[in-house]
Parts: sequence; C-alpha cells; structure tokens
Amino acid sequence: MRQRLSVETYTKGVLAGDRAMLSRAITIMESSLPADRALAGQVLQKILPHTGNSIRIGVTGVPGVGKSTFIEAFGTYLTSLSKRVAVLAVDPSSKQSGGSILGDKTRMERLARNPDAYIRPSATNLSLGGVARHTREAILLCEAAGYDIILVETVGVGQSETLVKGMTDFFLLLMLAGAGDELQGIKKGIMEMVDAVAVNKADNGNEQAAAQAVTEYRKAIHLLPETPSKVPVRVVACSALEATGLEPIWTLISGYHAQTSASGYLLANRRAQRVDWLREQIRYSLEELFYENELVKTHIPSADEAVQNGEKLPGQAAADLIALFLRTGSGDGQIFR
Amino acid sequence: MRQRLSVETYTKGVLAGDRAMLSRAITIMESSLPADRALAGQVLQKILPHTGNSIRIGVTGVPGVGKSTFIEAFGTYLTSLSKRVAVLAVDPSSKQSGGSILGDKTRMERLARNPDAYIRPSATNLSLGGVARHTREAILLCEAAGYDIILVETVGVGQSETLVKGMTDFFLLLMLAGAGDELQGIKKGIMEMVDAVAVNKADNGNEQAAAQAVTEYRKAIHLLPETPSKVPVRVVACSALEATGLEPIWTLISGYHAQTSASGYLLANRRAQRVDWLREQIRYSLEELFYENELVKTHIPSADEAVQNGEKLPGQAAADLIALFLRTGSGDGQIFR
Repeated sequence: MRQRLSVETYTKGVLAGDRAMLSRAITIMESSLPADRALAGQVLQKILPHTGNSIRIGVTGVPGVGKSTFIEAFGTYLTSLSKRVAVLAVDPSSKQSGGSILGDKTRMERLARNPDAYIRPSATNLSLGGVARHTREAILLCEAAGYDIILVETVGVGQSETLVKGMTDFFLLLMLAGAGDELQGIKKGIMEMVDAVAVNKADNGNEQAAAQAVTEYRKAIHLLPETPSKVPVRVVACSALEATGLEPIWTLISGYHAQTSASGYLLANRRAQRVDWLREQIRYSLEELFYENELVKTHIPSADEAVQNGEKLPGQAAADLIALFLRTGSGDGQIFR
Repeated sequence: MRQRLSVETYTKGVLAGDRAMLSRAITIMESSLPADRALAGQVLQKILPHTGNSIRIGVTGVPGVGKSTFIEAFGTYLTSLSKRVAVLAVDPSSKQSGGSILGDKTRMERLARNPDAYIRPSATNLSLGGVARHTREAILLCEAAGYDIILVETVGVGQSETLVKGMTDFFLLLMLAGAGDELQGIKKGIMEMVDAVAVNKADNGNEQAAAQAVTEYRKAIHLLPETPSKVPVRVVACSALEATGLEPIWTLISGYHAQTSASGYLLANRRAQRVDWLREQIRYSLEELFYENELVKTHIPSADEAVQNGEKLPGQAAADLIALFLRTGSGDGQIFR
C-alpha cells in the first residue's frame, strides 16, 4: 500500500511541476477512501488559485481514426513550441473492458518520454460520473503543475463526447476520408458539438481523398447553426503519421482561444461548465450518501424484494427508503467531494 | 381547472375500463402538484393487484419508417382478434419541440375511433426521467383498465429506446429496405436490444427489396450474441400501409410470450425492470427533494456564484448544500412518488 502524504507535500510537489507528485495527487483524487477524499478536497482547494491557465482541448473520433497517433504527433509539435502538454483520457468503457485506452503508454512512447509532456491513463473501474469528476480534477492539477495545453482524449463511445465537451474549451473531431461515405459513421449530434474537424491520414496517396473530404465537410458544416462561441467551425486535413498539417490546427486553436478570450465566451463557457459540474456533483453525492447510509443498506434488500414481487410500487419504496435516509443521514459530518 | 376526484372514483373507473376516467387518472400521474401526487400514489397502490396481465410491446425505428402507420394497422389487426389495445408514446424530445408525436390523434384516426383501443399522447414538458416514470405508471393503469396489449412507441431519438426497452416485454424494431445500405442508419447498440425486426413498406413494388433486406438482417443478426431471453431474434417483412405481414408478427410475439412465460424469463425480466425503476425513482426523488428544499433554494444562487467565479470547488459547494439539505429535509412528512 502506498503511503499517504500531507496536504502540503502534495500541493508543493504539484505546484513545483513534480510529475511523480502530480501522479500521486491524481491517484488520491481517484480514491474512494474517506481519508483520501478529505485529503483530495484540501489539496484541490489549495491549488485552485493556480488553475485555469491552460487551453483545454477535447479530441474525439471513432476508433481507428488515429487519435493516439494524432495526440502523440500534435503533443510533440506543441512541445517544440515550448508548450508543456498534459494528456488525459476519458474512457467510461474501461469499466467493462477492464482495460484503459491509455493503459499502455507505449501507444504514445515518444511523447511519454518527452520531459515537457505528461500522460495520465484513464482511471479504471469508475462509473461515468466518476470518470467525469476525476478528469475535471486532473485538469485542475495539471494546470497547477504548469501545463499550458491539456489534451483530453475520448474513446468516442457512449456519452464520453458529451462529458469531454463539458470540460474543455475547444472540441476537435478527427475524421477519415472514406469511399464516398464521408458523412457516415458520425454519431448523431457530434457535428453540432465541434469547434474544428481534422481529416486525418492525409498521407500515402490518400491526400486527394482527404482534400475532397475537407470540401464535403465544409459544405456540411455550412448547413449547421452558428456555434455558441460565434467562431466559425474550421475543417482541415492532417497526417498524424507524417506529422503534417499540425501547425494549421494549432493556429486555429490558438486563434479560437484569442477570439473567445476577447469576446468573453471562453470565461462564460467555463463558468457554465462549473455550474454543470456542481449539479453533477450534487447528484453524485446525494446518491452516494444514500447508498452508503447504514439504515438504507439494511432496508434495500427487502425494498427490492417487495418491488420485484409487485407488492410495493417503486415510488412508495423510494419514499420509504428516503425517509429512513433523511432521518439518519445528517449526523456524521462527513466531508464529501 | 379540472376537478380532483376521490381515490375510489379513479380506481373504480379505471377498473371498469372507463376510458375517460383512465385518461384523467393518467393526467393525475403526470401532475407535479403535491395533492395530485399523493392521490396518484394511492390510486396506483389500489390498482396494483390488477396489473401485469398484458403483453408490453415496445416499437422503435427511425423517423420515416412508418411507426404510426404500423401501430394503427397492427393495433387494428389485434382488435380483430378481440384484443384490447392501448398505445402509449415515449417522446423525451417533445420537451424541446413543444409538440408530441401522438399529440395529433388524427395520425391514428381509425384506431382512435376503435372502441377496443385507447391512445394516449406523450406528455409534454417532462424530463427524460419524468417521461419514463409516467409511461410506466400509464402501463399499469392501462393494464388495470383491461387492455391486453400495450404498444409503447418510441421516437427513436436520444435515450428513448433504452427507456422503452426497460419497460416492455418485447422490443420490435421497424426498418426500411434501402438501396444497399440496409444496415446503415441503425443506432449503434439497437440491434442488440431487439427481439424482432420488421422490414416495413414491403409494398408498391418494394416487395423484392424488402425480401432482400430480410435476408441481410437475418445474416447480420446471426453474428450477434444470444439474447438474454434465449429466444432467437426473428426478421420479417410487412406493409403497414396494406396491412400485410401483420399476422406473422403477432404469431412471433405471442410465441415469444408463451416461451418466456414457460422459461421464467418474462417474470425475471419484469422483476429486474422493477428494481431498475426503483433505482431511477430514488435518484429522481432525492434530487427533487433537494432542489425543492427551501434552504437549498435560498443558498443555490450564492453557491453557483462561488463555483462560477472559481472561489469554491463544486465538490465543496455540493457538500455544503447537502449538509443544509440533510439538516432540514426530513421534517415535512411529504409523500413522494
């Protein structure tokens, strides 16, 4: 078992940019032990004034589009501009599969060895809400540790896109040029969420198809309503494999950041995201306190049985359990995060 | 404003199969007024012993596949077998659009005039959780009113399929024969949820394409894992417009019902669905009580502001609000459903 350190040790280490300490602090955030949770809350509170100074970029796309290769190439490019880059992953599916998309760091071997980059695998065995919460906290810790760019990778399944959209400033969709079916395979609603589309694998004779796809996506995007940021959605081609087309992507992201900083949208969006986070946190904490309540735990099996047998309505069973909870739930002065 | 009747009046009316009283009872279920909610809980409790005797069938498919036409034709066919048929709709999107897929009963004009059929439009202005809860309650009321078959239509967007799958015994997917792209346009994961596929619009010269699509879907379904019910997924063609192919659909549904009744799966599935309903109800009631709490209402604006400004972490703000809630939430003896 690892040793638990003091709030000051974690805080100082993170603020000094110590990667080992950053990793340990993120691990504390992911823990469900009450002592760790109290500690995590205190560390977060301490580092809070040092957060918010990065550009938070979500990267999505269907499996096979080359997200890892893109992040490795783009991250490496950004470090060449003297940026410090952190990579986080949101993988709600890792609960089922037991693995993690970034569990094997060898997928981003070069970036992982780069002293200006930090790669954090997705936590496993967490609920969707848990993944969202811990990724948000990891973003704050990485910012406190001095990372200028946070890349948040989504696996492109389930609700991971919506989660990542809700915690980033800029949302980049990676696409492939296909055989005439450029607009297929896109999850409904994704196009409305993106700030830019990059057609990847514009290499090895695929350049013309990629250029064609860029034209088609531009047309398609023209039909969508204006984005909340008022910055037009851009479509570009790139090759993560050959590390080409990365500069235009950075140019458009830094341009977006400058425009939305000036217009006030960046700040307004982050403020709205924090309120959403609060609402999620309330839901999460209420349910967690409920199911951890000793009296509830004792009565859940008989409530389930009465409901299963059709003797009791779920509404009444819920009301009875909640009444038990409210009678006893307030006494323990527990710190929740 | 409508008049509120007694528990006995609603209960007796519903059990007597009085359609006007059934409609009024469902309206009471949809109300958020505390007095209506207490009443609704009591009515449900009274009718509970008279529920569970229908076959609950979910019907889904993309917009344009002809769901309404199919339900009108299939419902009419079922009444010709002396079945009493109720049609409900789950439309979480109606909150946004302000309309309802069944709001205009003229879409099922013939069935609406049939004395053995009952059509209930989807409630508007409800959350996803609200729609789920009220549809489940409406199913129970329709069963108590003597309907043998409950058809629950989903709009095929958002999470409506998962909701309907979670409250029905049998899930039917309507599809179209297309120009070689039979397997496209299907939302990922839907195929794994269905008990049967009906290729609609096998009419007007489209018969051969439909037969071809049936063959292709059969092949595709062969690749999927076995269903939890162990009953193989069936694929058939039909024409809602010409009312052909409906008998085989009813044969396979009634066969499914007989097989799963005998195997115990039908009951096991309903028992599991009731526990899921209880979990949803707990989540819903906890949040509702929280946000309706007077002290919480008073403190939410300042908590939002502190979180928006980055002065306070969402976790801490949530903990503070929940502590206020738990200190005061138990006193009012409110009845929740």
